[in-house]
Amino acid sequence: MSSPDFLLRPVGVVRSELRDRELAPMQGDEGAPDAWIELRPEVARAAVSLVPGDELLVLTWFHQADRSVLEVHPRSDSSRPLTGVFSTRSPDRPNPVGLHRVHVRAVERTRLRVGPLEAIDGTPVIDLKPVLQAEGR
Amino acid sequence: MSSPDFLLRPVGVVRSELRDRELAPMQGDEGAPDAWIELRPEVARAAVSLVPGDELLVLTWFHQADRSVLEVHPRSDSSRPLTGVFSTRSPDRPNPVGLHRVHVRAVERTRLRVGPLEAIDGTPVIDLKPVLQAEGR
Repeated sequence: MSSPDFLLRPVGVVRSELRDRELAPMQGDEGAPDAWIELRPEVARAAVSLVPGDELLVLTWFHQADRSVLEVHPRSDSSRPLTGVFSTRSPDRPNPVGLHRVHVRAVERTRLRVGPLEAIDGTPVIDLKPVLQAEGR
Repeated sequence: MSSPDFLLRPVGVVRSELRDRELAPMQGDEGAPDAWIELRPEVARAAVSLVPGDELLVLTWFHQADRSVLEVHPRSDSSRPLTGVFSTRSPDRPNPVGLHRVHVRAVERTRLRVGPLEAIDGTPVIDLKPVLQAEGR
């Protein structure tokens, strides 16, 4: 099997009051705040059809992750058995892509207000996708 | 806003009877077949906790995508209005990450049988994640 590597160029960045990975909620529905997504002006046109109320999947890049980790204790609870990261949402994993389901609160030309979002300030955003009906919209 | 680029190293590759992007279903629930995911041996340990019956999100890299596309006619239907790609699941987008919800059918040491999966043969796989309860498990 040969697979070349690919270059991910962020489309934006998270601007949030959350500053510290250790203090951030583990999931958005565990008390995460709303946040801004600042878009790169070059890709802002990809966001022109978004409106407040939309449900979105925000894909991020956990830039502080340890990409060498293959097994973890889920939710950092050492009493839980060591588990392969493909069965967990651990940010530490070979390609540390974060997946966050949010509501769009407000839309400006080069930024979006969304929430709840547990990603910390400065987290790169790599894609935005609508939630499909089959995914429980 | 400054965001560096990131290097994505696939964790595996799709092996499917689907060979041609033009003939592939647009979504997994539109008649897609089951497929194999061949894992890189170096990351196989991340999959040790997967079992048949698990619901997984498979993240792929649409390696044939046009990354310069910012607006499309949804589902390639020219009668539908031009729409920003962040409001669509178009594979043509700045970072062409595919998101596929599948069931695990079988688990071997370095490959997984999953389905339904509309990604074509040779599509790089970049991550596997469990479906969370909040996402309608």
